[in-house]
Amino acid sequence: MPHISQRGAHMPPSPIRKLVPYAEAAKKRGIKVYHLNIGQPDIETPPAIIDAVKHADIKVLEYSHSAGNESYRRKLVEYYKRNDVIVDHNQIIITTGGSEAILFAIMSCCDPGDEIIIPEPFYANYNGFSTASGVNIVPIPSHIEDGFALPPIEAFEKAVTPRTKAIMICNPNNPTGYLYSREELEVLKKICLDHDLFLFSDEAYREFCYDGRKHISALSLEGLEKHAILLDTISKRYSACGARIGAFVTHNKEVIDAAMKFAQARLSPPSFEQILGEAAVDLPANYFDDVHAEYTARRDLLVKRLEAIEGITCPLPGGAFYAMAKLPVDSAEKFCQWLLEDFSHIGATVMMAPAAGFYATKGKGVDEVRLAYVLNTADINAAMDCLEMAIREYNNK
Amino acid sequence: MPHISQRGAHMPPSPIRKLVPYAEAAKKRGIKVYHLNIGQPDIETPPAIIDAVKHADIKVLEYSHSAGNESYRRKLVEYYKRNDVIVDHNQIIITTGGSEAILFAIMSCCDPGDEIIIPEPFYANYNGFSTASGVNIVPIPSHIEDGFALPPIEAFEKAVTPRTKAIMICNPNNPTGYLYSREELEVLKKICLDHDLFLFSDEAYREFCYDGRKHISALSLEGLEKHAILLDTISKRYSACGARIGAFVTHNKEVIDAAMKFAQARLSPPSFEQILGEAAVDLPANYFDDVHAEYTARRDLLVKRLEAIEGITCPLPGGAFYAMAKLPVDSAEKFCQWLLEDFSHIGATVMMAPAAGFYATKGKGVDEVRLAYVLNTADINAAMDCLEMAIREYNNK
Repeated sequence: MPHISQRGAHMPPSPIRKLVPYAEAAKKRGIKVYHLNIGQPDIETPPAIIDAVKHADIKVLEYSHSAGNESYRRKLVEYYKRNDVIVDHNQIIITTGGSEAILFAIMSCCDPGDEIIIPEPFYANYNGFSTASGVNIVPIPSHIEDGFALPPIEAFEKAVTPRTKAIMICNPNNPTGYLYSREELEVLKKICLDHDLFLFSDEAYREFCYDGRKHISALSLEGLEKHAILLDTISKRYSACGARIGAFVTHNKEVIDAAMKFAQARLSPPSFEQILGEAAVDLPANYFDDVHAEYTARRDLLVKRLEAIEGITCPLPGGAFYAMAKLPVDSAEKFCQWLLEDFSHIGATVMMAPAAGFYATKGKGVDEVRLAYVLNTADINAAMDCLEMAIREYNNK
Repeated sequence: MPHISQRGAHMPPSPIRKLVPYAEAAKKRGIKVYHLNIGQPDIETPPAIIDAVKHADIKVLEYSHSAGNESYRRKLVEYYKRNDVIVDHNQIIITTGGSEAILFAIMSCCDPGDEIIIPEPFYANYNGFSTASGVNIVPIPSHIEDGFALPPIEAFEKAVTPRTKAIMICNPNNPTGYLYSREELEVLKKICLDHDLFLFSDEAYREFCYDGRKHISALSLEGLEKHAILLDTISKRYSACGARIGAFVTHNKEVIDAAMKFAQARLSPPSFEQILGEAAVDLPANYFDDVHAEYTARRDLLVKRLEAIEGITCPLPGGAFYAMAKLPVDSAEKFCQWLLEDFSHIGATVMMAPAAGFYATKGKGVDEVRLAYVLNTADINAAMDCLEMAIREYNNK
């Protein structure tokens, strides 16, 4: 019998899914599970953009351009301009989700054995794409004590080797919710220029910035035009995770030409959802106001409730819709499993993502969890009631 | 300035697209271009399956299961059963187009430096996926003289090395239109069992078999359950190329488990088009009768017209919607470019794919072209009028 590849064997399973069977079993026992474990918002997808798909007049569902429909790319030029990113439509490739944008960046810029520096904790699927492409992630630590701020420049300098090809950030950050400042971006710029590194900037959560702070895109940094690659997606922005529409954007022509060859090999991104994405650019400006107010209320409630529980630390996230919390438990993984297997409070429990899966360094984050505040405030309150009871019960076992 | 990867540099550009700028220039000059160069059918996508998308009641466009919606996978079980392939829904992963199914197969089964034997000419994008994953394609020749039948078993035996992990076929074949017989599939089975190789079977054109012949799936071969991987797509079957919905199907649990990790890393296939794919399984059986009759008429006309032109050889294709023709010209590439740049007949010209791009061996197929009979018979006639005139004019230059 032929066997799978080493690549297939080493491919990391999604850490978020490890607990899924326990959640399913809990539901079978009639327990209500509050899902704070994944970034699947409950916010309604704007009906106007779903209607755009429904009203499309399609006779033959043809391949689109490999870079995506030109009309959509031209629309995105407007969208990016509103966000201080000046590009033309030939500098944009529509991708199948942000996932494919990440894969194109790694494949186009890195060879097997090359290294990408990423502040940890980081989005776990970066591991999958690096394994698939034979590239090594070099983590440098960020810390819950300072809210997961960018590691100091010295940490980057120490991590650079002749095989380093890129630094990767997620801004605002998944899983930490940290929003990088202009000063921090300038630090990244300096390192990238000094060592001739690409900056892969995953900006999936661009619109989710709180407390009046403004998002700064890596693509708006002057002098970094040859280095910066923006990795984008409409998934979170418009609560359209199932659309699988993202974007790969760069001013570097050599890079966009290389990425186009990967894009051509897979022919085209999905057609219906490009219509949805194009319509989204024309949503009224106040669409984000409502979404923003809702997420702010959720964040404030979640962090207030967490900080009120004895022994829990939770830095206030500046962006995205995630919070990282340090729990007074021996193992967040065991605790999260116990929550699903052995605990309930008024017929309910809560599911969270153990944070160890977001760290590349073994032993880190073992008492931390990531919470996605993608549920309404009533549900967040109920989930926090569960967590409060559970911490007490777990430690009195 | 940081530079792209060797992988990005070596990534082959799509050979089909090389001529696109010339076609665009011809159109700008007011010339009508008959596109026989790509497999984009003009057949209407069944309105019933587009309506299924339009009538879907979606409030939140959520991530689907990474393997695709369970309801769709269960439907596909019925579809495959009708085609003599017995699988359960856990043996199916819905992919983003057939492209992703190919990538998952190579990634899950092959490591960098491993080899895949493929009869040439072959679908050019296999090159892109093998370059992306660091795997080497070992071509073995099939010949226009015998209609591109499967190479003899000796050719496979000679090509096997310790790094060989798989044989890949496309059945019916793109670009040759060849439909493999049961005897030929038994030859492949023997080699795979003798040398413990995977058989990647791209069956995108399953429904397009002519002259009363029946398609035999690699997944229906007894004793090959651990070796065979079916790579599938709805693109051609339902004239839904823009849907980007395919499938990765195998009885081998180790392989499906590995492929699932790649599927999880990219989260999910597109949602709207899964609804379309699911609805397609319920199309009335006579849907294919009409499509089949149309393509048979196109094939018969195309081959008759080609064979009537002095110096052209075109074996009758048994399946798919492609024909390979040997032309009485010095270079098919030069000729195809000339057709777009310097030729017109009653204000029209024809675009074909030079076949050299489908061969891995340099110097092969230089006087061959691939023609996709994806246009209606009136257009095929007009295109053949152009070709007939053009051959005469080109050789009298």
